[in-house]
This record gives sequence, structure tokens and C-alpha cells, in this order.
Amino acid sequence: MTIKNVVVAGGGVLGSQIAYQAAYKGFAVTVWLRSEGSVERAKPKFEQLRQTYLATLEAMKSDPAAYCRGLADTPELSVDEIEQLKQRAQQAFESIVFTTSYEAAAKDADLVIEAIAEDPKQKDAFYAELAKYLPESTILVTNSSTLLPSQIAASTGRPEKFLALHFANRIWRNNTAEVMGHPGTDQAAYDEVVRFAADLGMVPLQLHKEQPGYILNSMLVPFLNAAEALYATGVADPETIDKTWMLGTGAPLGPFRILDIVGLTTAYNIVVLDPRTKDPDSVPAKIAAALKERIDAGKTGVDAGEGFYRYN
Amino acid sequence: MTIKNVVVAGGGVLGSQIAYQAAYKGFAVTVWLRSEGSVERAKPKFEQLRQTYLATLEAMKSDPAAYCRGLADTPELSVDEIEQLKQRAQQAFESIVFTTSYEAAAKDADLVIEAIAEDPKQKDAFYAELAKYLPESTILVTNSSTLLPSQIAASTGRPEKFLALHFANRIWRNNTAEVMGHPGTDQAAYDEVVRFAADLGMVPLQLHKEQPGYILNSMLVPFLNAAEALYATGVADPETIDKTWMLGTGAPLGPFRILDIVGLTTAYNIVVLDPRTKDPDSVPAKIAAALKERIDAGKTGVDAGEGFYRYN
Repeated sequence: MTIKNVVVAGGGVLGSQIAYQAAYKGFAVTVWLRSEGSVERAKPKFEQLRQTYLATLEAMKSDPAAYCRGLADTPELSVDEIEQLKQRAQQAFESIVFTTSYEAAAKDADLVIEAIAEDPKQKDAFYAELAKYLPESTILVTNSSTLLPSQIAASTGRPEKFLALHFANRIWRNNTAEVMGHPGTDQAAYDEVVRFAADLGMVPLQLHKEQPGYILNSMLVPFLNAAEALYATGVADPETIDKTWMLGTGAPLGPFRILDIVGLTTAYNIVVLDPRTKDPDSVPAKIAAALKERIDAGKTGVDAGEGFYRYN
Repeated sequence: MTIKNVVVAGGGVLGSQIAYQAAYKGFAVTVWLRSEGSVERAKPKFEQLRQTYLATLEAMKSDPAAYCRGLADTPELSVDEIEQLKQRAQQAFESIVFTTSYEAAAKDADLVIEAIAEDPKQKDAFYAELAKYLPESTILVTNSSTLLPSQIAASTGRPEKFLALHFANRIWRNNTAEVMGHPGTDQAAYDEVVRFAADLGMVPLQLHKEQPGYILNSMLVPFLNAAEALYATGVADPETIDKTWMLGTGAPLGPFRILDIVGLTTAYNIVVLDPRTKDPDSVPAKIAAALKERIDAGKTGVDAGEGFYRYN
């Protein structure tokens, strides 16, 4: 099978990016949304993406640092080639079809990418309704960060053609796609999704097993947690901890710069999942308290203009 | 107090580097070693360091990538300035005094840097004997990676003037110095050591509390452990895990490249400290087994020419 028709369910931050990128790469894209109200709320995101793609491509004409791996396989592009890519970005914007109908979305779909709310009930209802209209050959993937595909598989009605394809925010720049099946996923469907991810301009990162947090967060969470513990227990300040990591490993960012990008609220929500936070003298509780103090002061990270550092 | 006379105890990898760097930065350096045999074994290390310093400085004349932060505060150096630094490196080599006498080492010491074997008994015996000859004002620091200063403090006879100053391998390039006291360390001695570290061309990284693993290893160990777990449980291969980390965080090296530099034997020795390794089905046991398989095949890392990757 060759994937041509791609349905993206959900018009949130990631859903809109995935849909836009798929259209940019020449797939026929339908965005399924729950209601006309959702469609109206999603459309400005697509207009914003159009502007971002066009502005980034324009900047790539003169600034090597502007290059985004998702936009082109190589930074070595002539002005003419970039102009063609800008046309593609414009056509992508015009080509995307919006629908609130399961049937219309499903009927010709080669691949459905589900990027709706991280709520198991909503996901189950979505998959169950969609299943009524889907051609037998359609592959389904979820972009869920917090649910494992095995937790959703049964409700899809086609567990063998269901797996996870997990994107990073700003996919035109951070072009990784973690591909993860559940024990019942067919290898053929898995391989098809790996090919699709590459065609989408992503670097497919293959997991051979289900893993909560996929690959990146499985390392990032304990790393950030260790850094947070050093700060929350008074061993060292964020600037010193960041400097140590950068000098010691050559990394461009220390953990507290990364936390500012991830957002302190997200970091807090992860920490409080730890049952040890119930004991106020535990390290996780101290981490939670240190994060909450900043969150309560509105210092939630880069997006707020301040987190552990100030941004202008 | 101004530190002028520096004694380095131990002529191993780090001891020789610390002594050489201190002499290069203009301190009067005495290296204390246990026996004449130790002196003879240490001297070739100093000759090797002389060659490394001279060759690196020579390379800095034409290659910006050769710049090492420990050798000069700025990479913007004229050929004349580099020639002067080469003279310093040569003079450093000639100026270092070797002794096996506690008394000769101790009598004029402003600072003693202990970098002997990581054996509490040897360290206690060393400090107890040294204490007989040391001037009252002398500050003592340990470069121990695995023992906390509070575990050694009593045997020094001057716990208030005792703390840890922890260096990274290849200190002329990786110029970090973690400064860590124990609860009984005087602030004045701590501050003096911070100043000394800066004068030594290091970036002083201040810890406000005792912390096993200092700052860097407190983050590096759980990070590497998470990566090892992904590999040892079959979630993904080292290349994919490294690629994920590099693409996801912009880091120049993934965890398995770092493990190859650290050395798989060191990583193995850390993992087997975990009591869960007794259960062969546990994740730590799987990590230990995966590391041991490579170690048994001689693939212990960069120094062996192969670890998770091959090196020429």
C-alpha cells in the first residue's frame, strides 16, 4: 500500500502541525474535528503555520541557521528551490479539507493520525465511531504521549493495524517521529508507518517494544528529575547545575533551560504523579514545592517570559 | 591567605594532571608519592603531559578547535602569546618537585590536594601522617569521586579546613572543578578553594551541600542508566537512542557515545552497586548483563577501540 490520503483527527498544537506538514509534503489531508466550533478554532492555527512556514523558508535564503530539517532534506538550496517550497507551503494551506463527519473523513483514508485529547474515554469513543466507516486497509496511529497503544488497541477494531507515531512540538524543525507498536501490531503496518514518517520529512525512531514515555522522555524525565532534586534539596542553583551539564557534556542547554522550554507546569504534573510527594520531607515533594512556588508566581517557562530564567 | 605552594598527593591520571596544570598556572608544586617506585612510575605521565600541553598550544596557533579553556582564558591569542604559554608549559615540567617525605611535602604547603587511591583506609592513614607536619593554616582538599568529605574529615585533624575539589579528566580541556564542603567546613576555606580553582584556570562549580556524585554525576548516572535500560530491555538500539537524544535536545553526543568515553567497566561497576541486580529479571540485572557481554568481548569503550561504537 502507498499512503496518499491522510486524515488527522484533532486540531490542537500537534494535530494542526502534523496536518500542515503532511499537506506540505504532498499528501491529501483531511482534518477531522468534533464540531464546527472546533473547525473555527483550528483555522487560525493553520494560518499561523502558513506564515511560519513561509517566513522560515524565506529566512533560509540567506540565514543558514534558519534551516529546518522538516522543510527540506538539505540546507543546500537555491533561491529558486526555496521559492518552489514556498509555493508548496501555500498550496498546503489551500489544500487541507476540514470535516466534522466521521464518514467523510474515513471513507478514502489510507492513514488516520489521531491527535485528540489525552482522555481514554474520548479516544475510545472516537475509534469506535470511526471504525464504522473505515476501509479495511486503513492504518491507524495515535500521537498520544501518555497512553500506550495497547491501552487503546481494542477499541480500534483493528489492533493489528494500530500503533503509535509520536511527534515533537514544532515538527518542521524538531522532525523526530517515534514509531511504537503494541504486541498485536503487524510488522507490515509498522513498516508502512516508518516509511510514511520518512516521507513526511521526519526521522523515524523505531521502538521494538512498548515503552511509556517512548525513547526521549524515558531519558529526559529522570535526567530533569535529577537536576530538579539538586536544586530542590539546596545542593546547587539552577545556573550552576546548567553550567555543569553544559561544560561536562558539551550540550547546548542545561536541564533548567530545557525545563523552561518544556514548561514548569508539565514538569510539575509529572512530579506529582510520584506517590512519595505525599511525604513533604521526600525529595519529590521538595521538587514539587519548588516548581509550584515558581508556577504560582507566573514563572511557568519560556512561553510566560520567565521560568528559571528570564526571556524577552 | 594567598595560595602559592601546592602539594599534590598521588601521581595517577588526575593527580599528575592537577599537578601539571597548577605548575603551568604558576604555582610552586610538590608532588608527594608513597615511594621512589611511585615516583619513577609517575614521571612518564608528566613527560606525556608536557608533550600534550606543547602540542595543543602549537595547534592553537592555527586551529580554533584546538583551543582548551584550561590553557588560556581566551582563544584570541597571538602567536607570541602562545609561544609564552609554551614556555610556561615547559617551565612547569621543570619546576615540579617530587618527594616521598611527608615532612618535606607538608612544611610550606598552603594547599594539599589529595588524589590518592579511592580507599578509605589509605586516605585516613595519609591524612593522619600528614597532619603531624602541616602548618596550621594549610587547607586540604580531596579529589575523591566516591567518598564524601564528611567520611574523611575526622582523620585530617582539621575538618574546618577540609573540603572536596573534584576535577574532570583532561583538566586542561574539561576545566570544571566542583567545590563541595562537609557540614564542618569553614566558609573562609571554601571561598579560598573557589578562588584557587579559578586561578588554576578551572570553572569553579559550587555545591552548597554534600552530595554523592557531586553535580555532574548526580545527573549523568540516572540519565545513562535510563538509556542503558532502554537498550537492555530491548526497546531500542544504541544508535537509535543516541539519535533520539541528539535530535531531541541538540546535544552533540548521545548516551552511548558518552558511555564509550566514560568506559563500560565504570558503568558496569556503578550498576552492580544496585542491590536489585541480584534478581536476574530486574532491569538493573539486564543492564549489568548487557554491559558485561561487551566488556567480556573486550569492547570497553573508546580506549579499547570499541565499545558501543567502533573507533580507529
